[in-house]
Amino acid sequence: MELHEIIGFVAGFGTTFAAAPDLLAMLKRRSSRGMNPTMAGIMGTFQIVWVYYGVLIDSMPVIVWNIIAVVINFLVVGAFFYFVRNEKIVREAKR
Amino acid sequence: MELHEIIGFVAGFGTTFAAAPDLLAMLKRRSSRGMNPTMAGIMGTFQIVWVYYGVLIDSMPVIVWNIIAVVINFLVVGAFFYFVRNEKIVREAKR
Repeated sequence: MELHEIIGFVAGFGTTFAAAPDLLAMLKRRSSRGMNPTMAGIMGTFQIVWVYYGVLIDSMPVIVWNIIAVVINFLVVGAFFYFVRNEKIVREAKR
Repeated sequence: MELHEIIGFVAGFGTTFAAAPDLLAMLKRRSSRGMNPTMAGIMGTFQIVWVYYGVLIDSMPVIVWNIIAVVINFLVVGAFFYFVRNEKIVREAKR
């Protein structure tokens, strides 16, 4: 692996895992409160464009880290709707 | 400007401005509550590595958007300490 690829992988490792604690805390809360599916959805969508850009310039770090980011962001959107649905079921059960 | 550069600039525009609403809401609260300076600091540090990677592969979009992201993240860290200092002054004034 060439130097610049190592640099790119280190950069992406840092920016991807810097957000991990927040993400885990949010998923542990098992509540839609404080989640921002709109931002995650927009981020995920534009990260697909970053993946396409990475393909055009043949940059593995840009491709790999943005694919991971797309998966994480769409997991956040999915988790949000899952928690909202659960909260609705719980509310209706209490009626 | 070549096609791939346009794609890279569009991608970065989206991922950078997707975070803008959250950032503005946080700054409007004028409180350190809910801010995560550690994540912003780690993100900003690794985005400097992304800038270096962009230089190595001669990618303007990677360079430009990550410089903007570095500035935003270190502004967040600065704003956090500014709000914390203000909150301390207010608390001491109430004693």
